[in-house]
Amino acid sequence: PGDDMEILRGNALIGQSGGPTAVINQSLVGVVERALAAEPIQKVYGALHGIQGILDGKIVDLGQESRETLELVAGTPGAALGSVRRKPNEEDCRRILEALKALDVRYFFYIGGNDSAETAFILNQQALKQDYAVRLFHVPKTIDNDLEEMDHCPGFASAAKYVAQAIMGDNLDNEALPGIKIDVIMGRNVGWLTAASILARRHPGDGPHLVYVPEHGAIDPEAFIRRVRACVEQHGRCLIAISEGMRGRTGDYLVHALAGHYVKDLAQNFMKEQDSHGNVQLSGVGALGDLMVAYIKQELGEEMPKLRVRADTFGYPQRSFAGLVSEVDAREARDVGRHAVDVAVSGERPHGSIVILRKPGPQYASEYGVVDLEKLAQKTRLMPSSYLKGDDDIDDSYLEYVAPLVGPLPPQGTLKRVPVPGARAVSGA
Amino acid sequence: PGDDMEILRGNALIGQSGGPTAVINQSLVGVVERALAAEPIQKVYGALHGIQGILDGKIVDLGQESRETLELVAGTPGAALGSVRRKPNEEDCRRILEALKALDVRYFFYIGGNDSAETAFILNQQALKQDYAVRLFHVPKTIDNDLEEMDHCPGFASAAKYVAQAIMGDNLDNEALPGIKIDVIMGRNVGWLTAASILARRHPGDGPHLVYVPEHGAIDPEAFIRRVRACVEQHGRCLIAISEGMRGRTGDYLVHALAGHYVKDLAQNFMKEQDSHGNVQLSGVGALGDLMVAYIKQELGEEMPKLRVRADTFGYPQRSFAGLVSEVDAREARDVGRHAVDVAVSGERPHGSIVILRKPGPQYASEYGVVDLEKLAQKTRLMPSSYLKGDDDIDDSYLEYVAPLVGPLPPQGTLKRVPVPGARAVSGA
Repeated sequence: PGDDMEILRGNALIGQSGGPTAVINQSLVGVVERALAAEPIQKVYGALHGIQGILDGKIVDLGQESRETLELVAGTPGAALGSVRRKPNEEDCRRILEALKALDVRYFFYIGGNDSAETAFILNQQALKQDYAVRLFHVPKTIDNDLEEMDHCPGFASAAKYVAQAIMGDNLDNEALPGIKIDVIMGRNVGWLTAASILARRHPGDGPHLVYVPEHGAIDPEAFIRRVRACVEQHGRCLIAISEGMRGRTGDYLVHALAGHYVKDLAQNFMKEQDSHGNVQLSGVGALGDLMVAYIKQELGEEMPKLRVRADTFGYPQRSFAGLVSEVDAREARDVGRHAVDVAVSGERPHGSIVILRKPGPQYASEYGVVDLEKLAQKTRLMPSSYLKGDDDIDDSYLEYVAPLVGPLPPQGTLKRVPVPGARAVSGA
Repeated sequence: PGDDMEILRGNALIGQSGGPTAVINQSLVGVVERALAAEPIQKVYGALHGIQGILDGKIVDLGQESRETLELVAGTPGAALGSVRRKPNEEDCRRILEALKALDVRYFFYIGGNDSAETAFILNQQALKQDYAVRLFHVPKTIDNDLEEMDHCPGFASAAKYVAQAIMGDNLDNEALPGIKIDVIMGRNVGWLTAASILARRHPGDGPHLVYVPEHGAIDPEAFIRRVRACVEQHGRCLIAISEGMRGRTGDYLVHALAGHYVKDLAQNFMKEQDSHGNVQLSGVGALGDLMVAYIKQELGEEMPKLRVRADTFGYPQRSFAGLVSEVDAREARDVGRHAVDVAVSGERPHGSIVILRKPGPQYASEYGVVDLEKLAQKTRLMPSSYLKGDDDIDDSYLEYVAPLVGPLPPQGTLKRVPVPGARAVSGA
């Protein structure tokens, strides 16, 4: 429509989609506060559970919320409007547009990952077909950090902070009670979050000693066992960070490949469940960690019978743990929401995805831009190979990328451990 | 020996044992700083990995550590001296005493749980037999909170804070993307930690909706499914907090009972591994959560085919997450260490376990005491039945007990969600 560059008057509607994060409500409040202040926007509505709420007529008036409530909500994890995992088909889009028209919605902001960019893209095509003037913006969030065109995604840094602090603690725990420990970290196709585990390394010998991300390619079981054995010989222990989405040599997810050996039923019963975007369920199960423990015990159990082998799957706390956010992440999440409204109201372009870019320079600083929806929809940004080190580690250069996003981590003390001269072993008396 | 009430001159030795906590190093530093200042104590030594370090002659001089290092170490999770899970036999005890004599150790402080009280008790009996004057004190720690004679145990409140913040976040996540969610929380025989999940309830309808602790007795599978179904019908979702040590009707651990149905191999291969104190491994595996998901899907899958069912096992971050402590816990953990030295040096009694008691009164305050080692050794303190509510919940009176220990939790905002009058469902167009 030719009037896109002009002032478009009407109401705004906001929805949240996909897995919640620690800061997705910052983006919500960023959109709401800016939309409430925007002259061309009359009412500011929220759809409960994203497009599902639009289809169900579950729309709330966000202008009725107090400033105090909004500020508290901004600092609360989860998705305050409710979220959804639903990919609209053509019929859904037709109905959604019908609902937008009925409410005179001229600004639609959809906060989510690449699936949400895809939803906005499909909706926009329908709107163009029906010649309905609506400005459709995708406001990014994902702890996976896998959106194209962006330096990093809101939600990622807070999850990375969780991973760093969890691995810091687990490294100390593993040092205190040595053994082989596997920590399974979220990440279906990309390893940005798992890679953040190297923030936990403070001293030589600190874990994680091995880090496996999907970008390393398929894991080689024999090489894996060799590396674990060498690590135990060197450090007396081995802390392993691994992405839930690692694949085995057959190309299958590692969890399914290992399950074939150990627990066929479990794999068949519920591990291959898919969501409406075709994603296999990998989070919310501890199977990969358990199966890796079984595999390590099978391979190394005889030569290292006393060694503890344990696994934890960090799970949903990575994206939802209350009270743990990166300050940079919280600020940027708020700002992408505000920027989306500014761009939409300006009429600079009728639709798009907001992106965060890193300003060059020695000090960390970011700025915001906007790109076409299809640049993010259904695309996945892998870690560049320069951040990989061999086939089981992450390069230190990644720290320059991730550390400013995560911000300060807790201090950590270590004893000098000066040996007492007179002390002698009595065990072999 | 009759000289226990007199001044006993010599060196002090400190060890850490059992699973680390977020504040066990506070107790270490409490002992060290007070011992360094105690006139009758000359050198202050640390045993690396508890009694294993004594047997191996791995003893360090803690007088060589700077005050700055000690203060940093106090705030660091893990066990700075290294820990161990080893129950000494008679021969071990004979050798340990030999080592203590060689180093003129007259004060021995062992920081740990009830297994460590047992170790101190066995050592003390050997010392009496050999007529070697040594003051043996057990300094308590355990996230399980299951030591007898105490109001609560150092390490518990920080773990409870982790659980509360994780469940707060997961409740919001589950509200955003409704489904059945199971969170498996540490606790082999007792439910103190799992019960702390109710701190996450802020509003009516908040999870956890069902809470299962070992004190409830065996879980009844049919009743469980009925309650989950009723909860989903009422709230559209169900968040379940469950102790890893829940038992099934046969008296077996629930994880083993369920594994019999689904994954025999997994259970046989590694889930029945025991430590030297005879404890079956329950932490460091995600199996219980996964198996409960499989069970719920089997029972409810047909009538609720679209419902998400997920599980997380909170694992080691509960005891080791860096940068998350309860202030009360940190202070008390330091003070039990200090108190142990004070009692030992005073000669008030030659051995014992330090305990924390709650002072009566409207404001929370605690004080420290000392009891015989055998009062804690090999004993487990269950939650009193007054804290249980039915067979699947915790009574609100428990909040009065646990909230002052955990301290302030993150604020949380909730939208009013005022419906827009004109909004109508378009799904059934």
